[in-house]
Amino acid sequence: MSKIAIIGYGNVGYHLNQVLQKDHAVTVFSRNPKQDSIKSLEDLDAELYDFIFLCVPDDAVKKLAESFKSKNSIVVHTSGSRPMSDLESHTHHGVFYPLQTFSKEKQIDFSGFPIFIEGNQYTEDALQVFALSFCKDVRLLSSAHRAQLHLAAVFACNFSNHMFHIAENILKNAGLEFKDVAPLVQETIEKAITLNPSNAQTGPAVRNDMKTIAGHLDLLKDEDWKILYKLITENIQKHQ
Amino acid sequence: MSKIAIIGYGNVGYHLNQVLQKDHAVTVFSRNPKQDSIKSLEDLDAELYDFIFLCVPDDAVKKLAESFKSKNSIVVHTSGSRPMSDLESHTHHGVFYPLQTFSKEKQIDFSGFPIFIEGNQYTEDALQVFALSFCKDVRLLSSAHRAQLHLAAVFACNFSNHMFHIAENILKNAGLEFKDVAPLVQETIEKAITLNPSNAQTGPAVRNDMKTIAGHLDLLKDEDWKILYKLITENIQKHQ
Repeated sequence: MSKIAIIGYGNVGYHLNQVLQKDHAVTVFSRNPKQDSIKSLEDLDAELYDFIFLCVPDDAVKKLAESFKSKNSIVVHTSGSRPMSDLESHTHHGVFYPLQTFSKEKQIDFSGFPIFIEGNQYTEDALQVFALSFCKDVRLLSSAHRAQLHLAAVFACNFSNHMFHIAENILKNAGLEFKDVAPLVQETIEKAITLNPSNAQTGPAVRNDMKTIAGHLDLLKDEDWKILYKLITENIQKHQ
Repeated sequence: MSKIAIIGYGNVGYHLNQVLQKDHAVTVFSRNPKQDSIKSLEDLDAELYDFIFLCVPDDAVKKLAESFKSKNSIVVHTSGSRPMSDLESHTHHGVFYPLQTFSKEKQIDFSGFPIFIEGNQYTEDALQVFALSFCKDVRLLSSAHRAQLHLAAVFACNFSNHMFHIAENILKNAGLEFKDVAPLVQETIEKAITLNPSNAQTGPAVRNDMKTIAGHLDLLKDEDWKILYKLITENIQKHQ
């Protein structure tokens, strides 16, 4: 059993606490604790913990890391976009990046997705052993490669969700809901995983069906979505 | 057992033939048959068939329908974007729109997604009974609503696949493949279905994390993808 501090109780901090508290002694810290079970960041004594997880927004990582000192603890952040060097004021530091989208409303199984880790001297091995105690797929990745992975994840997850969001709105015009297209979306992903997205494209853009495309632009009343539709269609046609 | 003609052997015609030939007598027609099992469209005698499925590109439906005559057969097209009226030269006509993405490389189960049908007088009932013989979820939908559904499907399927395609390219810069983000993409969809996409957004755009966004724009070397990234980010921030 390790002693763990989690700083920040957003989506990542919440889910990390859920999985770690099963086997470890976890204390959660926050700048403005709103629950009795969460301690104020001012009360953090870094030396009491084996691992300190910084689960704060990406642009707050460096400042938070520089706001406290550690000696023997391993201090890690969970950000896809921030380099490991944000934590270099700490002797033992590293990165624990879970490649997943977290919302407090939905439970998540840490054995079902890859964790990308990085550590400075002596830290990497300890972090890997610890991560493997509750995650199945733990891989080493440099800060530079993790930045590319994070950018790819924004397209694959956030931007595809925005396409679903627009679909959800348009479906209302047909008296339908997003769950009505769930089998289509599920198959889109299965096909993308099996064939690779570059070989799986279908629809009017890749067929160069200008009549259908013109009809769609005519149906779209939101000017922003019209611009998006045009741009993505041109991009599909260019990159096939 | 019904007698079925399928005209057009693209992705939809191929899969419709796969499922229908199990229980029905199916003949496939094509303008330029490349296989012995496919007949030339010139040899079509419409009166031999109970159902004639037009599985040609959307912009070819009307012209094809007007190129032959029928009396007792039910003539249907499978297009999401074309109105039923494209077939009004035929006494019995309708639409059979499977809401799915088809590729010849991947088998598909017709009981796993909804079929949207429409029919003129007397046709709708017969089409519904026939569709229910091999599909589980058959629903009536007007041409106007189907056009909205088709537009929504382009965002939900084709445009999200393009986001995956861009992700696939960026992942190469990190020595990774699209299948490495498969659990993330799978969870994105499960969350979108459970919470609705409008409640499921995460990432730098919705967090208004301008530093990470600037970092991503800096990493993107393709000018088109930079423009897309900016536009989708602004759109996410505006529509939350």
